[in-house]
Amino acid sequence: MVFRNIKLTMAYDGTDFCGFQRQAQGERTVQGVLEKALFRLTGEFDTLRLTAAGRTDARVHALGQVANFFTKSRIPVDRWVDALNSNLPPDVAILEAQEVSLDFHARYAAKKKTYHYRIYRETRQDVFLRNYTLYYPYKLENKQMQEAAGILVGEHNFQAFTASGSSVKNHVRNLTKLEVSEVGAEVRIIVEADGFLYKMARNIVGTLLLVGETKLTPAAVEEILKCGRREKAGPTAPPHGLFLVKVEY
Amino acid sequence: MVFRNIKLTMAYDGTDFCGFQRQAQGERTVQGVLEKALFRLTGEFDTLRLTAAGRTDARVHALGQVANFFTKSRIPVDRWVDALNSNLPPDVAILEAQEVSLDFHARYAAKKKTYHYRIYRETRQDVFLRNYTLYYPYKLENKQMQEAAGILVGEHNFQAFTASGSSVKNHVRNLTKLEVSEVGAEVRIIVEADGFLYKMARNIVGTLLLVGETKLTPAAVEEILKCGRREKAGPTAPPHGLFLVKVEY
Repeated sequence: MVFRNIKLTMAYDGTDFCGFQRQAQGERTVQGVLEKALFRLTGEFDTLRLTAAGRTDARVHALGQVANFFTKSRIPVDRWVDALNSNLPPDVAILEAQEVSLDFHARYAAKKKTYHYRIYRETRQDVFLRNYTLYYPYKLENKQMQEAAGILVGEHNFQAFTASGSSVKNHVRNLTKLEVSEVGAEVRIIVEADGFLYKMARNIVGTLLLVGETKLTPAAVEEILKCGRREKAGPTAPPHGLFLVKVEY
Repeated sequence: MVFRNIKLTMAYDGTDFCGFQRQAQGERTVQGVLEKALFRLTGEFDTLRLTAAGRTDARVHALGQVANFFTKSRIPVDRWVDALNSNLPPDVAILEAQEVSLDFHARYAAKKKTYHYRIYRETRQDVFLRNYTLYYPYKLENKQMQEAAGILVGEHNFQAFTASGSSVKNHVRNLTKLEVSEVGAEVRIIVEADGFLYKMARNIVGTLLLVGETKLTPAAVEEILKCGRREKAGPTAPPHGLFLVKVEY
């Protein structure tokens, strides 16, 4: 019997998850509930290995996360979506399943990922948005945020925007888009790159918020990018405003 | 020192509450967290009595619930909103506080209440709407639902639409509006009345859903309204699609 490689596109509400990646201590993770559902459907345990495009942190959401897994199961590919959804909790939903070539790897093959960060601007938090937007009623200068965003766009060494102590050696990434716009009562930040360092999206947002509050100038952001020192950039923005929207291959 | 009567308008996400009303067993209720916050602010315990316009069930939400309480506290009325919000969990928010005359009673003085019920119609549930809409991908005949809705509007004995075993004697209520409309991917039902019997809004929605599925005709709904027998009407629709939107005095 031969292996098949199945690519899944999924959405999840990150509120009640300790991130995507399975954890030793048995905390509730997206990978954990997915692998449990796959085990129920296939009976396979040793062979199943689920790989996600982006290992989102606790409370980060996904509208279009992608993962792949290998299986010997003969379940037809057009049955996987319903079969998985009926074995998953209501805060995860499989949107699409495709059979792909055996060398497809959800993370290494990704060419571009898009994240959105939602910032709620009313004077009072909306109880229904509390887990999906950062409540930020303080003054924000959008123009300056946009100017700083323009500086970060392009191929750069993003060492200043990744968690210190990360083991990754190469910090060069191509930030293809960084847009700050108003959408109703929200400021929305679109971040798009060929790859993301650990906490890079949230560190960029945290830095742009400091610029919006005029605690950092766009010129200072350019300096920080050049010097590469994490402690000069802004804090990591909270996870619950972040959505992994799309992964392109 | 004299009592003051404070009227609060509030929103809450009902997902993690066992309803509005405080319960003997110590389950988490909106009244419970509110009275705890009030106790922290006033130090009063015996005198505080919180009364809500509608005692919403577990998982029912509110955009404009109204409640009132009596206090000897001298906290100025324009300070109550912020003072309470900083002592409340993030799933309850006070929107407005007003001092009202001592004879104001949030429930008895209410002239009209408006509920919305949200029904999600896509073939797959949206993970972000799972606690705020009823997922209902089945065929629904909106025209027939609207016809049945028209029959229920007006002053009627709504005994067929209240939970059996309720102790209320008078089942006559004036249903001033019952509208079924499409809003994007949802069907939304607006229910407005001078008062609601226990579970009346959800029983009306459950009955309209049967009409939408053509399991009940509008003529049958007229019969059910006349005969007053609960078991002839539709089931109680699930709580999480229901929002208490507005209370008018």
